[in-house]
Amino acid sequence: MKIAITGGAGFIGRKLARALLDDNAMGVEHISLVDMVDPPADLLDDARIDAITGDVTDEDLLAQAIRPDTDAVFHLAAVVSAGAEADFDLGMAVNLDATRTILDIARRHGTTPKIVFASSCAAYGGDLPEVVTDNQQLTPQNSYGIQKAIGELLINDYSRKGFIDGRALRYPTVVVRPGKPNKAASTFASSIIREPLQGQGAVCPVTPETAMWLASPRTIVANTKRAHDLPAEAWGPWRAVALPGFTITVGEMVAALEAIAGPEVAARVRWERDPAIEKIVYGWPSRFETTHADAMGFARDAGMEPVIRAFIEDELGGVIPGAA
Amino acid sequence: MKIAITGGAGFIGRKLARALLDDNAMGVEHISLVDMVDPPADLLDDARIDAITGDVTDEDLLAQAIRPDTDAVFHLAAVVSAGAEADFDLGMAVNLDATRTILDIARRHGTTPKIVFASSCAAYGGDLPEVVTDNQQLTPQNSYGIQKAIGELLINDYSRKGFIDGRALRYPTVVVRPGKPNKAASTFASSIIREPLQGQGAVCPVTPETAMWLASPRTIVANTKRAHDLPAEAWGPWRAVALPGFTITVGEMVAALEAIAGPEVAARVRWERDPAIEKIVYGWPSRFETTHADAMGFARDAGMEPVIRAFIEDELGGVIPGAA
Repeated sequence: MKIAITGGAGFIGRKLARALLDDNAMGVEHISLVDMVDPPADLLDDARIDAITGDVTDEDLLAQAIRPDTDAVFHLAAVVSAGAEADFDLGMAVNLDATRTILDIARRHGTTPKIVFASSCAAYGGDLPEVVTDNQQLTPQNSYGIQKAIGELLINDYSRKGFIDGRALRYPTVVVRPGKPNKAASTFASSIIREPLQGQGAVCPVTPETAMWLASPRTIVANTKRAHDLPAEAWGPWRAVALPGFTITVGEMVAALEAIAGPEVAARVRWERDPAIEKIVYGWPSRFETTHADAMGFARDAGMEPVIRAFIEDELGGVIPGAA
Repeated sequence: MKIAITGGAGFIGRKLARALLDDNAMGVEHISLVDMVDPPADLLDDARIDAITGDVTDEDLLAQAIRPDTDAVFHLAAVVSAGAEADFDLGMAVNLDATRTILDIARRHGTTPKIVFASSCAAYGGDLPEVVTDNQQLTPQNSYGIQKAIGELLINDYSRKGFIDGRALRYPTVVVRPGKPNKAASTFASSIIREPLQGQGAVCPVTPETAMWLASPRTIVANTKRAHDLPAEAWGPWRAVALPGFTITVGEMVAALEAIAGPEVAARVRWERDPAIEKIVYGWPSRFETTHADAMGFARDAGMEPVIRAFIEDELGGVIPGAA
């Protein structure tokens, strides 16, 4: 089986690549990782990995990765929320136009490859009920969410027409992300856990009462793989679903950090409100009923403490370098 | 005030143009009518009308119509449902790309013109409740509906960013359309009234029990104009709304025809199911609660008989040429 992953050097892309390579039953022969940068050495050194480095808005580059014999494409590359808000044209080019280019390349091949598209709960916004259900209209209040909602519509129509076999997943906010902060408005949700664990301070730009809808990298990778593995019939008439997550306030996140790493570590979080970030984050819903996704067997994290422990295991070698 | 109407020679476009020209309070100085064909003589002869004939996918043509001093654009041009289903690329080019081109031309001018976008209830589909409400997710099961749903998202984001002052309206099926059948899957809904009234037979490709959600040309034109006239604040956080309509079965439509024109006229309807049309039409919802639109003062027809009488008045000079 041959696979392409856009955003393949990103933190979800690389974990997904490893999970796919490790699945012997799947029998992965080849994965093209498309990204602006090279993937980590362990992936580069794997003979089955082909690193295709460049801009996802470059059609030729995408055509190198998505070939007539490509069985599946995981389209994760995106300009994230605050980034797409700051540079509208870049957001449209990457989040909308490149998505359409990928769909059109796949369509030209005439091989109906599976395409798993990373959408986002940023596609929700505006007047929302207390608890968001599966039939909620998408009325995003940020360009990133608009572009993701459009991607979902395209994935659906290309699937209905038989051009591709598409599946779109609305990711909750993913915590704890490894690495450095990015341009997502939600990036603080990882920073306030990740940085204190490593002895550094982190700024929280929203109030402790702010509720969020979260999922861990482990669960996101498992669910993204599951979206691929499910038969087409499991999707019914709509190829997009809000993934399970869990609801927690930012204050409770820091309390979980304290429970695991102690008060000195938790005290490294500084509370400093940023109206630009608040405006985006407060527009995102934090409570969902994910009836469809639950019925389809998608996984859900058991809460914040296991998520932090998994981060320490996966990214910090099982120790807390910043512990007092 | 200066206006552009795409699809301006179409039956809604020309009625809208006349309504705008007749509104003295509005003080219309100029209307560019963009269409593949020239508008009717009464409009061509009006010194305030500028007929711009050509393809709406031609950016230069659109730029002729949408100028730095254009106050409002009514974007009605579209490849309709069965047409967009038969020619996917044409649907994408006209319904998606041309819409985006219009938004980008307006954005470049930096003048935040009003843009009223004709969306459609074909944007609904899939698993729907018995009665569709304002917060229903759009999961269209046809390419036309997908492209209209994308247009709504773009109208919203360009408005939120301050590039335009957009308003999108989900039209019910419009009956009774004058003229000839078109490529809309719903075209029969006008044919079964229009042709018998003029002494001709008409084929109904769906069962008499098929319920539809309808609005008359008069009401559509009034509501489209109202969408322009309403202040931006009236729209709240989302610049798209399902317009009021009325629910009626196809059998009841023919019964209304019989009540007005007699049984011989009604007998000119032949019932001959067409699975391709049925597949599209049965996917459209027929019952709505249009709470937002009602609160915004959009109008609703009083039922089928007044709609037929208005057609006879407006299009047949007040007489039934096909009466026995």
